[in-house]
Amino acid sequence: MRDVAVIGVGMQKWGELWEKSLRDIFTESAMLAIDDAGVDHIDSMYVGCMSSGLFVGQEHLGSLLADYLGVAPIPALRVESACASGGAAFRQAFFDVASGANDVVLAGGVEKMTDIDGGGATFALSTAADAEYEVYNGVTFPGLYAMIAVAHMNAYGTTREQLAAVAVKNHKNGAKNPHAQYPFEVTVEQVLSSVMIADPLTILDCSPITDGAAAAILCPLDMVGDFTDNEPVKILSSAHATDSIALHSRKDLTWLSAVAKAGQIAYEGAGLTPSDLDFVEVHDCFTIAEIAVIEALGFFEKGKGGTGAVSGETAMGGRIPVNPSGGLKSKGHPVGATGIAQIVETVTQLRGVAGERQVDGAKIGMTQNMGGTGGSCVAHILGKA
Amino acid sequence: MRDVAVIGVGMQKWGELWEKSLRDIFTESAMLAIDDAGVDHIDSMYVGCMSSGLFVGQEHLGSLLADYLGVAPIPALRVESACASGGAAFRQAFFDVASGANDVVLAGGVEKMTDIDGGGATFALSTAADAEYEVYNGVTFPGLYAMIAVAHMNAYGTTREQLAAVAVKNHKNGAKNPHAQYPFEVTVEQVLSSVMIADPLTILDCSPITDGAAAAILCPLDMVGDFTDNEPVKILSSAHATDSIALHSRKDLTWLSAVAKAGQIAYEGAGLTPSDLDFVEVHDCFTIAEIAVIEALGFFEKGKGGTGAVSGETAMGGRIPVNPSGGLKSKGHPVGATGIAQIVETVTQLRGVAGERQVDGAKIGMTQNMGGTGGSCVAHILGKA
Repeated sequence: MRDVAVIGVGMQKWGELWEKSLRDIFTESAMLAIDDAGVDHIDSMYVGCMSSGLFVGQEHLGSLLADYLGVAPIPALRVESACASGGAAFRQAFFDVASGANDVVLAGGVEKMTDIDGGGATFALSTAADAEYEVYNGVTFPGLYAMIAVAHMNAYGTTREQLAAVAVKNHKNGAKNPHAQYPFEVTVEQVLSSVMIADPLTILDCSPITDGAAAAILCPLDMVGDFTDNEPVKILSSAHATDSIALHSRKDLTWLSAVAKAGQIAYEGAGLTPSDLDFVEVHDCFTIAEIAVIEALGFFEKGKGGTGAVSGETAMGGRIPVNPSGGLKSKGHPVGATGIAQIVETVTQLRGVAGERQVDGAKIGMTQNMGGTGGSCVAHILGKA
Repeated sequence: MRDVAVIGVGMQKWGELWEKSLRDIFTESAMLAIDDAGVDHIDSMYVGCMSSGLFVGQEHLGSLLADYLGVAPIPALRVESACASGGAAFRQAFFDVASGANDVVLAGGVEKMTDIDGGGATFALSTAADAEYEVYNGVTFPGLYAMIAVAHMNAYGTTREQLAAVAVKNHKNGAKNPHAQYPFEVTVEQVLSSVMIADPLTILDCSPITDGAAAAILCPLDMVGDFTDNEPVKILSSAHATDSIALHSRKDLTWLSAVAKAGQIAYEGAGLTPSDLDFVEVHDCFTIAEIAVIEALGFFEKGKGGTGAVSGETAMGGRIPVNPSGGLKSKGHPVGATGIAQIVETVTQLRGVAGERQVDGAKIGMTQNMGGTGGSCVAHILGKA
């Protein structure tokens, strides 16, 4: 398979974008990526979206968005793996280029979540869990992650203050990200005293409901010079792993086995270990998620993830900066777009143009995007070419 | 890229399967395909499904179905292109094997459509059209295809009797298919006098609402002997093209440009012309669809597709047998599964084991699966290896 580079990325400010439709926000980000890459055509495209049918009554997104982008009749396909849909779209685009099937491929992600009532959004998100066993019995995602948090607290002594420290760190980073939905700082006290959603998770332990899109352009590494003077970013490895989407089928609620498996495949594929990474963008849909993920990816021993944000090891300038973008927590979480936004941030960091939130000397970064409570995980390692 | 073979297929009888859930029907078909192929593992899998979120409140199907099939933690991804989702899943599986990324890959499709009220099913299906311009103004799929039919009748003199002849032919074929939802014959008079759905389409011009699944196993052609003594079927070409999903954006309502484009790519990829094919499985979601498709694929001149079923040219034993399986019309149309069922029929025909509906001496067959009113089209040409 051919070496593949990312040569363009695009996204706009995320938030409650009531004046724009799904097709608007996708097309705007895609055009930014195309412009950034300097390409005059696309050979094929992949769109990550979790649940546009439930959120806005629209399936058939591949063709719709290719048409609005003005690139039909090229192949254009939507892929879905719940909140890992964006990462999955990037992975399919990677294979498309690596295989030699196509040269210039767009990977995009989009979700329009705010044009539905709150109960509707909660139901739409719940479809990432097991409808017949979990959702039928009333669980929602804050409830599922609260169960993981309680199990983690009981097993390892993780504290509410440690959870809160994750939110504090990510909001501190996100406050420097012009695309973030909630670019403000919070304190541990504010997190702990904010409204309780599902004990022990308060609203500031939860990522928000968001409208947003993001896009990236991929091409063969040896063709980069044909299109752009941008410094290319090379895809060093791609990984995808699955697990039961129902929590009750897992041996250990605190261990995200699909994340561990995807991490292992990604490290082996790139010939690297966790200590080789300069930063990582992880899927902090809830504060406990970041804690469990940084353990599964090998940055912290099992049970010790809670110490990361408190000690400063995961902060900017720390041993392994986690979520320089602000993460899902501050940047927002339009579920299908999140995985691509992680790529946008990683490319921005590796180009050295992340401004106030730049990781000094960043040469290698990783993205980790997961679906549901970790029933799917897609991971990529990217490096300066 | 490597040559790729299909070495196993599986499906069960389609219909209103109220006693089985989506995961049941998918897993049963997948197990049949695995058993048929003789493989003891799968490296990755793709699931075509149009709208499980709206139909049964379940997204995240890749991981869910991999778990129930007992193959997690392998990569497992759902892909969606409305009613072409099954064909798209097969195409991604083809690339997965062809690229060298994986050796044994499952392509499946599934839709569980009857566990929802009729209005719910009509709305879920409408999400394959343009939500903001078409559906907002009240169109449904019978209405959209009725507009195509009226345009075709006005432009080319196509008659209601010619439409009805498509239903008669496909039900005649489907009456010999043990998997068909409606395995009975109908007459022209019955089609014409059945209840009107959207003028000029009666209920017997329309494919049904169906629960069903289908699956296929792919591997590199040069590894077939490692797994099975089955005669392998080679994938000669794969094509995917897109068009506006909204009818109002097309220059000519009667011409399915994505179908024509996908057909052209498929023919060129295989180095064949329409006259080289022994049979074709096409997307007859409505009788007018088959007429428009056989024109776009080059089996009939533009405007002359209506003559196909009346003259017997598209019947078994005719110049180009169309839908030996009974098509969507008689076999049923669980939208995400349809594209894979076309593969199942094609492999069955090329193996020469289609029984009463066998196309004599079949060596090369084609599948044509489309989304919406032709906003997407996936086509494959398969041949005896």
